[in-house]
Amino acid sequence: MRKEKDLLGMMDVPDHVYYGIQTLRARENFPITGYRPHHELIRALGLVKAAAARANMEIGSMSRDVGEAVVRASMEVVEGRFDDYFVVDVIQGGAGTSYNMNANEVIANRAIEILGGKKGDYNRVHPNVHVNMAQSTNDVFPTAIRIACLNVADDLLLALKELQAAFVSKAQEFDGVIKMGRTHLQDAVPIRLGQEFAAYAQMLERDIRRIDGASQSLLIVNMGATAVGTGLNADPVYIEKVSDLLREITGLPLRRAENLVDATQNTDAFLEVSGALKTLAVNLSKIANDLRLMASGPRTGFGEITLPAMQPGSSIMPGKVNPVMAEVVNQVAFQVQGNDFTVALACGAGQLELNVMEPVVVFNLLQSLDILRNVIKVFKERCVVGIVANVERCRNLVENSVGVVTAINPHVGYEVASRIAKEAIITGRPVREIVLEKGVLTVEELDLILNPFEMTKPGISGSELLKGRRS
Amino acid sequence: MRKEKDLLGMMDVPDHVYYGIQTLRARENFPITGYRPHHELIRALGLVKAAAARANMEIGSMSRDVGEAVVRASMEVVEGRFDDYFVVDVIQGGAGTSYNMNANEVIANRAIEILGGKKGDYNRVHPNVHVNMAQSTNDVFPTAIRIACLNVADDLLLALKELQAAFVSKAQEFDGVIKMGRTHLQDAVPIRLGQEFAAYAQMLERDIRRIDGASQSLLIVNMGATAVGTGLNADPVYIEKVSDLLREITGLPLRRAENLVDATQNTDAFLEVSGALKTLAVNLSKIANDLRLMASGPRTGFGEITLPAMQPGSSIMPGKVNPVMAEVVNQVAFQVQGNDFTVALACGAGQLELNVMEPVVVFNLLQSLDILRNVIKVFKERCVVGIVANVERCRNLVENSVGVVTAINPHVGYEVASRIAKEAIITGRPVREIVLEKGVLTVEELDLILNPFEMTKPGISGSELLKGRRS
Amino acid sequence: MRKEKDLLGMMDVPDHVYYGIQTLRARENFPITGYRPHHELIRALGLVKAAAARANMEIGSMSRDVGEAVVRASMEVVEGRFDDYFVVDVIQGGAGTSYNMNANEVIANRAIEILGGKKGDYNRVHPNVHVNMAQSTNDVFPTAIRIACLNVADDLLLALKELQAAFVSKAQEFDGVIKMGRTHLQDAVPIRLGQEFAAYAQMLERDIRRIDGASQSLLIVNMGATAVGTGLNADPVYIEKVSDLLREITGLPLRRAENLVDATQNTDAFLEVSGALKTLAVNLSKIANDLRLMASGPRTGFGEITLPAMQPGSSIMPGKVNPVMAEVVNQVAFQVQGNDFTVALACGAGQLELNVMEPVVVFNLLQSLDILRNVIKVFKERCVVGIVANVERCRNLVENSVGVVTAINPHVGYEVASRIAKEAIITGRPVREIVLEKGVLTVEELDLILNPFEMTKPGISGSELLKGRRS
Amino acid sequence: MRKEKDLLGMMDVPDHVYYGIQTLRARENFPITGYRPHHELIRALGLVKAAAARANMEIGSMSRDVGEAVVRASMEVVEGRFDDYFVVDVIQGGAGTSYNMNANEVIANRAIEILGGKKGDYNRVHPNVHVNMAQSTNDVFPTAIRIACLNVADDLLLALKELQAAFVSKAQEFDGVIKMGRTHLQDAVPIRLGQEFAAYAQMLERDIRRIDGASQSLLIVNMGATAVGTGLNADPVYIEKVSDLLREITGLPLRRAENLVDATQNTDAFLEVSGALKTLAVNLSKIANDLRLMASGPRTGFGEITLPAMQPGSSIMPGKVNPVMAEVVNQVAFQVQGNDFTVALACGAGQLELNVMEPVVVFNLLQSLDILRNVIKVFKERCVVGIVANVERCRNLVENSVGVVTAINPHVGYEVASRIAKEAIITGRPVREIVLEKGVLTVEELDLILNPFEMTKPGISGSELLKGRRS
Repeated sequence: MRKEKDLLGMMDVPDHVYYGIQTLRARENFPITGYRPHHELIRALGLVKAAAARANMEIGSMSRDVGEAVVRASMEVVEGRFDDYFVVDVIQGGAGTSYNMNANEVIANRAIEILGGKKGDYNRVHPNVHVNMAQSTNDVFPTAIRIACLNVADDLLLALKELQAAFVSKAQEFDGVIKMGRTHLQDAVPIRLGQEFAAYAQMLERDIRRIDGASQSLLIVNMGATAVGTGLNADPVYIEKVSDLLREITGLPLRRAENLVDATQNTDAFLEVSGALKTLAVNLSKIANDLRLMASGPRTGFGEITLPAMQPGSSIMPGKVNPVMAEVVNQVAFQVQGNDFTVALACGAGQLELNVMEPVVVFNLLQSLDILRNVIKVFKERCVVGIVANVERCRNLVENSVGVVTAINPHVGYEVASRIAKEAIITGRPVREIVLEKGVLTVEELDLILNPFEMTKPGISGSELLKGRRS
Repeated sequence: MRKEKDLLGMMDVPDHVYYGIQTLRARENFPITGYRPHHELIRALGLVKAAAARANMEIGSMSRDVGEAVVRASMEVVEGRFDDYFVVDVIQGGAGTSYNMNANEVIANRAIEILGGKKGDYNRVHPNVHVNMAQSTNDVFPTAIRIACLNVADDLLLALKELQAAFVSKAQEFDGVIKMGRTHLQDAVPIRLGQEFAAYAQMLERDIRRIDGASQSLLIVNMGATAVGTGLNADPVYIEKVSDLLREITGLPLRRAENLVDATQNTDAFLEVSGALKTLAVNLSKIANDLRLMASGPRTGFGEITLPAMQPGSSIMPGKVNPVMAEVVNQVAFQVQGNDFTVALACGAGQLELNVMEPVVVFNLLQSLDILRNVIKVFKERCVVGIVANVERCRNLVENSVGVVTAINPHVGYEVASRIAKEAIITGRPVREIVLEKGVLTVEELDLILNPFEMTKPGISGSELLKGRRS
Repeated sequence: MRKEKDLLGMMDVPDHVYYGIQTLRARENFPITGYRPHHELIRALGLVKAAAARANMEIGSMSRDVGEAVVRASMEVVEGRFDDYFVVDVIQGGAGTSYNMNANEVIANRAIEILGGKKGDYNRVHPNVHVNMAQSTNDVFPTAIRIACLNVADDLLLALKELQAAFVSKAQEFDGVIKMGRTHLQDAVPIRLGQEFAAYAQMLERDIRRIDGASQSLLIVNMGATAVGTGLNADPVYIEKVSDLLREITGLPLRRAENLVDATQNTDAFLEVSGALKTLAVNLSKIANDLRLMASGPRTGFGEITLPAMQPGSSIMPGKVNPVMAEVVNQVAFQVQGNDFTVALACGAGQLELNVMEPVVVFNLLQSLDILRNVIKVFKERCVVGIVANVERCRNLVENSVGVVTAINPHVGYEVASRIAKEAIITGRPVREIVLEKGVLTVEELDLILNPFEMTKPGISGSELLKGRRS
Repeated sequence: MRKEKDLLGMMDVPDHVYYGIQTLRARENFPITGYRPHHELIRALGLVKAAAARANMEIGSMSRDVGEAVVRASMEVVEGRFDDYFVVDVIQGGAGTSYNMNANEVIANRAIEILGGKKGDYNRVHPNVHVNMAQSTNDVFPTAIRIACLNVADDLLLALKELQAAFVSKAQEFDGVIKMGRTHLQDAVPIRLGQEFAAYAQMLERDIRRIDGASQSLLIVNMGATAVGTGLNADPVYIEKVSDLLREITGLPLRRAENLVDATQNTDAFLEVSGALKTLAVNLSKIANDLRLMASGPRTGFGEITLPAMQPGSSIMPGKVNPVMAEVVNQVAFQVQGNDFTVALACGAGQLELNVMEPVVVFNLLQSLDILRNVIKVFKERCVVGIVANVERCRNLVENSVGVVTAINPHVGYEVASRIAKEAIITGRPVREIVLEKGVLTVEELDLILNPFEMTKPGISGSELLKGRRS
C-alpha cells in the first residue's frame, strides 16, 4: 500500500495499481453499473493526453524528459496496456472528472516508472500539474468522447454499407419473384420481392448518409477551452498546437471549435448523432418486422421467404425454427431508441457553462454504436445473405388474390371493379373467373391485363387495350 | 372598450368579454397551440372557486352578497355558460396562473353583473381580492387538474369496462374455434380463438385495476396550501372547510393532503396516472396488432378472422377494406405514449416549491384520457363486437400445420419428433402422414393425440396412451 | 339531404356540405381528438389534386372541361375557401385515406357546381374516377404531408434565424459584462455575459443548419407511385408530368423519388425532421433554463439578468413577476420531445408496402413545427430582446468569488492554490486578501492576474509575470 | 473437445464447459453487448429448474436418480457455482430460449457429472427431455424474470426506505431553519428547510408504495403454461405442484396465473414495474436538482446548504468541490427513463401467443432496479445524511427578500402591497423599510406579521391584528 493525499485527506492505494487516490474515491462514490470504461474511450483519453503533452513541450511549458515520458505512457494507454486500471464506473457524477483523473493518474504513474521512479512519487510527474497541464476535464472529456464515437461510428458505417450491399444483391437475386404487395396487411397489388429488397437498400442508403452527416459534427473539438471555454490557463499557441497534434495523432480530420465557450457547454452534436442512430434503429426494425412477417409460417403464415435457420427454436416444440436474427435486430433497435431518450434527457440537462451529464451520454452513445454495429454484422451474415424466396408460394398467392382487381379497374371502372372484388371476397372465387363469367372482359384481355410482371411496372396494365377502345 | 390596469400598465378590454387584463396579457404572450382550455378543466376551476367562496363566507372573510354572487357565477362557469371566455392557450408559461386569472376575471365580472354592476368595476368584486381569496394558483390549479382528470378518468374506465366485457363475450362466442397458436410468428401449437380473446379480456382487467388505482392518487388535493404549501394567508378553519366543501360540491371523495408543501411542489401523481394510461395504450396496441394480423388477407394473409368493414379502404383498389378501427387504436396508443414522455419531462422539471410546467402536463394528460376513452368506444362498437371467426380456415390451418408435432413429442421423444418435423417442413407433407408412414404411432393413437381440443388443454394430449405403455 | 352510396351502403349527406359519404363515414369512425385538419395540409392536398388533374389532362386521360373544373376547385381549396368542409379527425385509421377522400369529395362536388351540376351528381365529376385519377392515398397523402411540412418549416426557419440574430445582437451588447462562470452550478472562473449569449447563438446556428438539412429529405415525393410504389394504373408520362407540375404549382424544388416503392413505404424522412426539431427543442430548453437561473431572484437568487416583465406573476404574491416566456419555451420543448416519441413509434410501425400510421405522424410533426415557430417568435420579441444585464451585481459576484483562484494556479501551483481556495471557502474571506496575507503574490501581481477581462481570454492571466520569472 | 449435435448439425464444445451446443450457437449468433446474464436471473433459472424437476419426480414423470441429480445441479446454479458458464448475451433473439437452453445444458451436464457420467452424455440426463421436462422457454423464462426482479426489487425497497428515513431525520434536524421559498426560481414566501426535506420524504413514501404495489404483479407466474399457455404436455398435477414448489423454494408468495394464455403472452406487469421505477427516477431527479440548486455557490449561488465533499471537483480549478452524488442521481434517473422507453417498446412488440422481446425487457428492468438501488445507497450515505444547512445565509436571504410582502398583503390589500413590492425591487430597499416609511403599518405590527416562523404556518401572519381591526 502507498499513501496518497488530496484536498479531502489521505487514502491507501494498493502498490501495484497505476491509478491513484482520485480514482479510488470515484470508485467508492460510484458503484453504480459495475461496467468498466469503454476501451475506445480509454484509447481516446490516451490520444488526447499525448497530444496535450506534446503541445506543452513544444511551447516550452513542459520539460522534455517529463513530456516524453507522459507521451510514451499515454501511447501505452492507447495500446490498451492499462485497460485494467481504468476502473471508474460508466455512470458517475462530476462531468467526467473521474474519467479524466483516472487517465491522469494512470499516465502519471506510468510516466514516473518510465523515468525510473516509483508509483505515487508525484513530484516527478504530477497527474494534475503535468498530465493535465493546460487542460480541464471540460475540454479533455468531450474531446475524448468525440474521438471514441468517431472510431466506433466508422466501424458501424462499414458494417452498414455491407448490409446495404447485401440488400442490393438480394434485390437483384429476387428481381423476378412476383408476389403479393400488401398495404394495411391487406392484399393490395402485385410487387416483386426484388423491389421490396431494393427499397430496404434505398432506405439504408439514407441512413448511411445521415450517420455520416451527423458524425461530421463530432469533428469539432474544444481542446484549449479549459474550464468554461474561455481558455483560461491555456497558452494561445498551445491551443493552436494541441488541435493540430490531435489531428495528426488520431488521423481524424478534427477541427478546433471557433466558439470554445459554446463547444464546452453544449452537447447537441451527441444528440444529433444519437438521433441518426435512432432513425437507423427504427428503419432496421421495420426491415426485421417485414422479414419476420414474410417468413411467418412455415405452414400457417405468409411463407413467402425462408430465413436461414441459426438455432433450434424451441425447448418444447421439435423442429421449430424462429427468426432469431431478425428478433435480435428488433431488440437492439428498442435499446437504441431507449438510449436516445437517455441521451436527450442528459443533453437537455446542461446548465450554464457545462453539461455535467456527459458520462451517461457517452455510455449510451457508445453502446448504441456498438450494438448497432454488432447486430448489423450478424444480421447480414447470418440472416440477410441466406434468405431464400419461396417462389412458387409467392406466385400462387398473387394468382389467388383479389387485389388484381385494381389492374382491371381502369378497364371497367371503379364501381364495376368494386362489385367484382366484393363477389370474389364473399364467394372465395378467383377474380378472373368472375370477370369472365360476367363477360366484362375477354380471356385475351385478361391475359394481357393480369400479366403479373406488367402489374409491377408503372402504367395501366394492358393499356394498349384501352388505347384500342378509345380509338 | 373598457380600460383595465395591472402592475404593468393599462390595456383596452372589449366591453362584452368577461375576462380581463391578465387574460388578455396571457393571450398575447402565449399564442402557441391555438387550442382552448379543456371544458372539464374550466368546469373544475368553477367548482374550486365556488368551494373557496363558500368557505370564505363561512369563516366570515367574505361578505354574503359578494360571496353569493361569486358562488353563483362560479356555478354558471361549471355549467359551461362562459366557455367562450376561457381563452388562454393550453401551453403557457406561469404554472397555470393564466388559467387561474382567466377564471378569477370571468367569475369576478359575472359576479359584478349579478350584483348589478358593470364589467370591470372591480371595486365590487375583485378577481384577486375576492375570487382568489385565500388561494394561490399553486393550490387552485393542481386541484382543478385533479378534478378534471378524475372526471374524464371515470368516463374512460366506463368505456374500458365495456370493452373488456365485449372481449369476455367474444371469448365465449369463440370458445369452440380451434386455430393455430403462433409464437415468433411461427406455427406453434393449437389454441382456441376464445382463449386468445379471454387473454385480451384478462389483460384489460389489469388495466382497469391499474388506472383505478392510479386515480386514487388524484383524490389528494392541496387547497389551502396557497403559494408554497405553508398555507400563508389561508385561515386554518378555511383550509379545513374548503376541502369539505369541495368534496360536497364535486361529489368526489377528495382528501386534503397531509403534507401541503409536498402536495404543492410534486406532480408524481400525474405521472403515475400517465404511466397507467401508457400501459393501457401498449396493451391496446398489442390487441390491435393481433387483430390486424389475424385479419390479414383476405386471401394472402392469415385470414382467421374478419373485422367489420367500416369504410372503403382505398381510393385506387376497388373492394379493399382495411382494419381502420384497429389502426386508429394503434395511433392513439402512439399518441398516448408520446404524451407520457412529455408528462415525464414536465414532471421532472419541478424546482423547489413548485412545478411550473403543469399546464403542459394537464394538456397531455387530459388529451390521453380523452382519446383513449374515445377510441375505446368506437373500437368496441365498430370493431370488436362485430368480429367474425373464419372457422373453416382456422381449422384447416391447424390440420395442415407442423406444430402439432409437439403433441406427439411426449409419445415419441424430442429427437424423433424433431426428425418428423424437419421432414414435414422440407417435403410439405402433413405430420400425420409422415408419422403413419414411419409406423411410429397407429391411426388410433394419432386420432387421440391430435384431437385439436385435447391439444388446447393442460396435459399430454392422449396421455392415457402413455399410461398404457408405462404399465 | 342527399343520398350517397358506396361499397358499404347508403347514407344521408346534408345538402349544403361539399364532402360526401366517405368523409361522413370517417367522421363517425374517428371521433378521437376533435381537432380539424391542419390548414397547411388542406392547402397541400389542393395543390396535389390540381397538379394531378393538369397532368391527367395533358396526357389526355381527363377531358378538358372536367379537368379545368377540378383544377379550379382544387385551387379554391388551396385558397382556404373550403376549410370548413375538411372535417376528418387528425387521428384516424386508414393511412390517410379519409384525408384523401375528404379532398376528393370536396373537390368533386365543387367541380360539379362549377360545371353547373348539383352536389352529389358524381356522374359529372367522380371523387375517385376523376379527382383521384392515377392516384392513390399512398402517393397523394405522403406528398401532401411533405408540402405542408416544408411550408411550416420555412416559417420556423425564418423565426429561428431572427432569434439567432437577436442572440448575436445581445452577445455584442453584453460583451463587456464580466460575470462568474459556473460549472456544476458551482463557481468556476469568470466569463463575459456576451460570451454566453454568443454560445446560444452559435448553438442555434447549428439548429438552423440541421433543420434545413433534414428538410431537404422532404423534397423527394412519390407522386405516381399509386398503391404500392409500382405505379400501377399511372401512365409513365403522367408520372413524369405530375412531379413537374407540382414543382411549378408549389414553387418548391420537389423531386420525384428514384425508388417509388421505397418512397411509398418508408417514413424515415419524417423521423429525420422530427429528430432535428427535437434537438432544437432540447437546445431551446437549455437556453430557457439558463435564463431562468441567471434571472433567479430578484433578491435571493443569481440576479445576474432581468427578463422583461410580461404579466403579473402571482394571484397571491403582490409584485411577483415570473419568467413566463422562458417557461413556455420549456413546455413547448417538452411537447416537441413527446411528439418526436410518437413520430418514432408511428414511423416504426410501417409494414411491408405502407406505413398506415401517417396521420398521427403528420399531426405531431405539424404541431411541433407550429408550436416551435410560435414560441420562438414570442420568446424573441417578449423576452430575449428585452433582457437587461445587472452589471453591478455580476461584477460583485466575480470579485467576491473563490473561483478566481484558478487564475492564480499557474503562478503558485495546484496545491498552494487549493489551500488558498479551501481557506477562502471556510473563512468566507476574499481570495485576494488571503493571497496577500500569505505573501504568495504582490498587490501588483494580483492586479495583473485577477484582471477580470484577462481571465475571460485564452492564456494564463498575467502570463508576462511567469515569463519574467522564468527568465 | 466433445462433439454435440442438434437439428442443425454438429459442433465442437470445449470439454471443460458445462454448457452445450445450443449455448454455443447462441453465443455465435448474438455477440451484441458483451454483457453476461445477470446473476439474479441465473439464480432464478436454477430455482425454476429445481422446482420443475421436483414436481416431475413427484408425479412420477422423472426417475428419482435423474431428478435428484437435476435438483442438486440446479441448486448449485442457484449458489452461483456455474455463473461462468452462463454466457449468452443479454440481448438475444428467441424470446429467452438461449437463456433457457443455457440453463438446461449447464444443469444437465452437471447432473450427468453428479451421476458419474461425462459431460455431453445426454442419454443420462438430457437438457430438453429431462431438465426442461414439461416446460417451455415461454413459461420458464417469464417466471425466472419475475423471481429475479422481485429479489432485486426487495433490495431496492430496503435502500429506498433508508433514504426516506434519512430525509425524515433531516427534516427534523432542519425544522428550525427558516429560508426563502421559491416558485419559478423567483422569491416567493418563507418556508422552513425542514418542510422541504419533509416533502422529499413524503414523495418517496409514495414511491415505496408504488414500487411495492407494482411488484405484486410480478408474483403471478405462468409455470405450466408450456408453449402458448394451454399447458400442452404439462400434466395438470404437475402444473399445480410446480407453483407450490416454486413458492416453497423461493420463499416468495408466488401464485399461478388463473389465465395461463394471458400470462404467457402479455408483459404488462414488467411495464408496470418499469413505470413505477420511472416515477421514482423522476422524483429522485427532482430532489437532486433541488439539492444542487440550494447548494449552488459557494459564493455566487444560493448557498443555502452544503453537500458533503466526496472528491476534488476539478482537474484545473483548485478547491472546487462539485455536487457529484446528486449528479450521479440525475444520470441514473436519465438511464432509468431511457430503459423504461426500451421496456415499453419491447412490451408493445408482443405478437399473438408470445412476446419474443423479453430478453431486452429483463436486461433493462434489472439494470434499472440495480442502478437505482446502488445509487440510492450512496446518495443516502455520501450525500443526504451529511447535508449541512447554512442557517445564517438562509435567514439573511429571507430578511432581505421582497417576498415577505405577501404576508403584508391581507393587511393592506393587493394593490398597496404590489406598489410596495415594486418599489422594493426597483430601489433595492427592504420591504420593511418602505412599509414603515409609507406609514402603512407600525413597527409593532410589522414585527408580528413578519415573524418568519409565523409566515411558514397556515393562516394570516399576524392575524390577531386583523381581528382587532375588524372589531
